[in-house]
Amino acid sequence: MATPVNPPRGMRDFLPADKARREHALGVIRGVYRAHGFDEIETPVVEDYARLHAGLGGDNEKLSFSILKRGIRPEAFEAAAASGDVEQLADLGLRFDLTVPLTRFYASHRAELPAVFRAIQIAPVWRAERPQKGRYRQFVQADIDIIGEAGLLAEIELITATSQALSELGLSGCVIRVNDRRILFGLLDHCGFAPETHDGALITIDKLDKIGAAGVVEELRGIDPAAAERLGAVLGGIEPALAGDGIALTRDAITAVLPDGAAADGIANLAALGEALAGGLPDGVAVQFDPTLVRGMGYYTGTIFEVAHPGSGSSVGGGGRYDGMVGRFLGQDVPAVGFSIGFERVVDLIELPETDGPDAVVLVHDAEAEFADLLSLKRELVERGHRVRLEKRQKNMKTLLARVTAEGFASFAAVRPGVRDVDALEFRPLADERS
Amino acid sequence: MATPVNPPRGMRDFLPADKARREHALGVIRGVYRAHGFDEIETPVVEDYARLHAGLGGDNEKLSFSILKRGIRPEAFEAAAASGDVEQLADLGLRFDLTVPLTRFYASHRAELPAVFRAIQIAPVWRAERPQKGRYRQFVQADIDIIGEAGLLAEIELITATSQALSELGLSGCVIRVNDRRILFGLLDHCGFAPETHDGALITIDKLDKIGAAGVVEELRGIDPAAAERLGAVLGGIEPALAGDGIALTRDAITAVLPDGAAADGIANLAALGEALAGGLPDGVAVQFDPTLVRGMGYYTGTIFEVAHPGSGSSVGGGGRYDGMVGRFLGQDVPAVGFSIGFERVVDLIELPETDGPDAVVLVHDAEAEFADLLSLKRELVERGHRVRLEKRQKNMKTLLARVTAEGFASFAAVRPGVRDVDALEFRPLADERS
Repeated sequence: MATPVNPPRGMRDFLPADKARREHALGVIRGVYRAHGFDEIETPVVEDYARLHAGLGGDNEKLSFSILKRGIRPEAFEAAAASGDVEQLADLGLRFDLTVPLTRFYASHRAELPAVFRAIQIAPVWRAERPQKGRYRQFVQADIDIIGEAGLLAEIELITATSQALSELGLSGCVIRVNDRRILFGLLDHCGFAPETHDGALITIDKLDKIGAAGVVEELRGIDPAAAERLGAVLGGIEPALAGDGIALTRDAITAVLPDGAAADGIANLAALGEALAGGLPDGVAVQFDPTLVRGMGYYTGTIFEVAHPGSGSSVGGGGRYDGMVGRFLGQDVPAVGFSIGFERVVDLIELPETDGPDAVVLVHDAEAEFADLLSLKRELVERGHRVRLEKRQKNMKTLLARVTAEGFASFAAVRPGVRDVDALEFRPLADERS
Repeated sequence: MATPVNPPRGMRDFLPADKARREHALGVIRGVYRAHGFDEIETPVVEDYARLHAGLGGDNEKLSFSILKRGIRPEAFEAAAASGDVEQLADLGLRFDLTVPLTRFYASHRAELPAVFRAIQIAPVWRAERPQKGRYRQFVQADIDIIGEAGLLAEIELITATSQALSELGLSGCVIRVNDRRILFGLLDHCGFAPETHDGALITIDKLDKIGAAGVVEELRGIDPAAAERLGAVLGGIEPALAGDGIALTRDAITAVLPDGAAADGIANLAALGEALAGGLPDGVAVQFDPTLVRGMGYYTGTIFEVAHPGSGSSVGGGGRYDGMVGRFLGQDVPAVGFSIGFERVVDLIELPETDGPDAVVLVHDAEAEFADLLSLKRELVERGHRVRLEKRQKNMKTLLARVTAEGFASFAAVRPGVRDVDALEFRPLADERS
């Protein structure tokens, strides 16, 4: 056939085993977040084109898929051609993250929501990136956000809930690295970078794990050679600790690696956070201070965090405080913090049980079996709590049994003609067929 | 603010209570379908533009949202303006149903799927219809399909599984009306309509509930006056039964309302289906024969069905056999049957439990409470299986308690300073606050 039958470029079909794995992970995450007092919401997958291009999405705005206006007329094409302006043709776009829709949602429904709103959003987003291993054009984000709480309790609830979700998914050995944007800015101030150079300097520092301290200093010399040298001295002092056991999230450990007098606000914030979290995280989850953590998005204002896992080269989650963003739609500042799990990376790391459980059974029947008999048997088994699959007998039974075993079923019974009583069936374990 | 904060036209935000209701319904449907041996799959929300406009989607194709090519250049706008051809600008579109993606999925992955494949798809679709009450531009469909089974067992499994799903959602009084496209064509043949007029005649018969038998005959006179009169006589004989108790799905009842000798294939099919289903459906679900049921889509080839519920003016589900459709991508015929639940209508009909259960608790704390204490209490309660919400004490406690009660929480405790032991908390039922 000439028609291609693959999904669109960079997007994926999920077969039953993949889908079951994803639904299992989503169920665990959703369950933990609900237990921690968060409430799930949903917004449409599309938002107004103008909203998706309002400067809140950083580089992601350029990656958004745009939706053509309906019933558009040739005159519009001509006008767009003349101006080179896509906005005349597109009125909607697929969301590239869940944060822009959340802020829009909050602005729209604030009167119906509690003063401190704890939101769960688990949903796909779309980015027209060049597809590559582990990077897709449609992928799921699992976000929790607390809107309306200015105090540290918000960060604490986000970090403990997400830690438990990762822990219940079986991801042991997670390290949550924490920083505060005010520490970064304080450090830049201290080294002598002028305020207007800070954003550019952060973009460079964000590359530390790729180009090293020497590379960062080299690049920052273009901004301010003296300040770059001073920052280099600080980074040089921090690098061994980051490469080794990490820096504890305590006041003493934080101040020990920072120059005297820099970033008092950020230090107080992180010291209090470390104190509250001490002993409160699930086993196997550690929290550490990382003064070089930047997080890409420009909207962060305070605490920022990122989760590393030994099984993944890049982070499996991250987030931070973005107090200014919701206010852009409301004309008044509303504090907000969010934590996003990198669902696609996490789902590749988890292990799934091999079967659907002992109650998943297969009834093997002849092609001539009475439909009413099969229906009766199936109905009774379903009522007793079984998952039931009917399978027609085939020549190569070994192949059939191996397949349903791989599909997660636990036992099977052959249906003899005339049998309508479940208790007359003889179930045999499929595990024997696994070998 | 100048920026609008509503969701795009015809689309909806779901607040926590709405979202919980939807997730509850999805969980029930998913659970029943899995128990019946179906497997869930997922495809991307977008498909190639050409696939969405290949003639398989009927009128829905015209309603699809199209996605602008990325990095498109002004020359393309000019060419599109000259030709009036949108296809030069759009390469993808949002799916308008789950059937077109399923056939594409099956063609792509056939080698990895069992010979008889039972698929669940529960996912949103998009149609750029004029929004009106109960009709949205983004809405969820819940479909099951069996691909690869030519026999009636497929229809039986679909109908019993869907009946049970509706029944477990608490929708009692559902009536599944069943017909066979071959009965419709046999009837038209019998009345003397030429084969090339059949599709047009079905479009008219589909309006029976709106314009009545007399209206149908009037409209069909334009095709063939003598045939229209003959069909009118048949419809006139059927109308009282349909308006009354309905027509049983038995051979005798079916043949009694059809002219002698018409549509033997379809009759044999439905009689066997009625026999197999007798006694096999959940309490409160009835199955009936409706020789005037058409179902809009042209791709149906055999059995068709539709579910009516007394609480809804239009159907809450429907489907049928579409044996020719999968083959269009494969170059070989593959039998297929599908059943779709009208999720948006169903979710409006169900009743939800008022609370999240006895384990949903609220901890009311002072603004000065120690974070570490709160974290410790919350952690312990979550570990014991509770859903836990922290709420800061406020002046008007009555308002706070009324809100968390409405949000589904069952009891609350005030956290006194220094308390870190869950057993020292005194929980009081929130039900007292409901009044």
